[in-house]
Amino acid sequence: MENTLTAAVLLIGDELLSGSIQDQNLAHIAITLEKRGIRVRETRIVPDLEIEIVDAVNQLRSRYDYVFTTGGIGPTHDDITSDSIATAFGVENVIQQDLFDEFQAYLDSKGIEFTKAAQRMVCAPQGAEMIKTKQTALPGYCIENVFVMAGVPRIMRIMLDAIVERLETGSTILSSAVHANVREGEIAESLAQIQLAYPDVAIGSYPQDNDSKISDYSAVFVVRGVDQQLIDKVCEDILEACHRGGHVATRP
Amino acid sequence: MENTLTAAVLLIGDELLSGSIQDQNLAHIAITLEKRGIRVRETRIVPDLEIEIVDAVNQLRSRYDYVFTTGGIGPTHDDITSDSIATAFGVENVIQQDLFDEFQAYLDSKGIEFTKAAQRMVCAPQGAEMIKTKQTALPGYCIENVFVMAGVPRIMRIMLDAIVERLETGSTILSSAVHANVREGEIAESLAQIQLAYPDVAIGSYPQDNDSKISDYSAVFVVRGVDQQLIDKVCEDILEACHRGGHVATRP
Repeated sequence: MENTLTAAVLLIGDELLSGSIQDQNLAHIAITLEKRGIRVRETRIVPDLEIEIVDAVNQLRSRYDYVFTTGGIGPTHDDITSDSIATAFGVENVIQQDLFDEFQAYLDSKGIEFTKAAQRMVCAPQGAEMIKTKQTALPGYCIENVFVMAGVPRIMRIMLDAIVERLETGSTILSSAVHANVREGEIAESLAQIQLAYPDVAIGSYPQDNDSKISDYSAVFVVRGVDQQLIDKVCEDILEACHRGGHVATRP
Repeated sequence: MENTLTAAVLLIGDELLSGSIQDQNLAHIAITLEKRGIRVRETRIVPDLEIEIVDAVNQLRSRYDYVFTTGGIGPTHDDITSDSIATAFGVENVIQQDLFDEFQAYLDSKGIEFTKAAQRMVCAPQGAEMIKTKQTALPGYCIENVFVMAGVPRIMRIMLDAIVERLETGSTILSSAVHANVREGEIAESLAQIQLAYPDVAIGSYPQDNDSKISDYSAVFVVRGVDQQLIDKVCEDILEACHRGGHVATRP
């Protein structure tokens, strides 16, 4: 789509790969970025292993305008994101003195000891820029086009809000849907023709289970693009193709 | 972990990247595989674009024992998984005559036309082996170490059950948790020591939001491995470290 930027999301953590925790960050990041004309083009989930994180960061940062990571910036032995990102950029992971002082004051005010382990949380790769927020004791940060955020959803969202404020943006990505009771096989040829006629939108076709939370209809067609008038025109064409075939269809 | 196999999961579909649909397959796949000693080591989500699917399949199949894909095997223009996997293996995506005949008979029995578009669903890369199930009209398939499944969760689960029956398996991966009211910074050094002492388990530390669905405690420590006695020993050590620091902790 014209005038949009691209992003990758890198979710870091064994727990996401083992199925013990369901990711709650990706959809929120994607929706937040699309409003600003930034499309998530790839997502990777990698374990808490430096070699895997380094490899993914280096591949993704060269391919996309922005990379957003979540997870692995706490104080425990399995929090190795900052070390790994430093390695990916060929720099040291170093204490950020400003942050150290502020966090020390914060912990002092709460009567909490600033342990050696907790000091890992005020480290970031040399050259990183802190992205402070009023609602979190510690900030996310960026280094070049890579943005590093916490994994805990509530904290991640606050950090993301602070980050997007400063991003270059593209045209907002819009979408509309048509819901229909039609087998995909019966409408596929019409859909393909419509897609060919309108290359500036992306038409997706999603069959629904009986217990779908998305629609009571058997298929959902989603039209995405940057021009709402064009999206509406394409939706009407899809509706018409459904009706022509005798299928119940609606725009919700 | 000794005697385990590795896998990657490749989720295919624009809708997963745009945040319009939340993935419901990864956790199920991971949990099903871990019971059979196969660890998911990486997950990627890519859009409905051939070049991206080809690239991901080729990277992942060379790195891991198994690759599992979901999505993109329907009849519509955006269903390009089989074409892409054929390209990745340097073969043609061809009609599977057996499948064609069976599906023709199935559609005839239901009085449904076998459209040109629907015929795409009986294609698979040359050399692929169909993995039929009694509950789905069409099968998943494998080509070398790549297993191709539908994206609709109900269908995917049936296909996965049929696939895992035939996989080489490793030692079942087991896990236990300790829940505690402790700041990660206060326990991190003890955890790191315990992890060092027991390299045959992986200890993960997960701080919890107030509205966490996983635990009412502020932190969850998960110990994973293939030996339950060893896992229990490590959990007891973590409990003891929490209690020693005056923190409430329990094994749920």
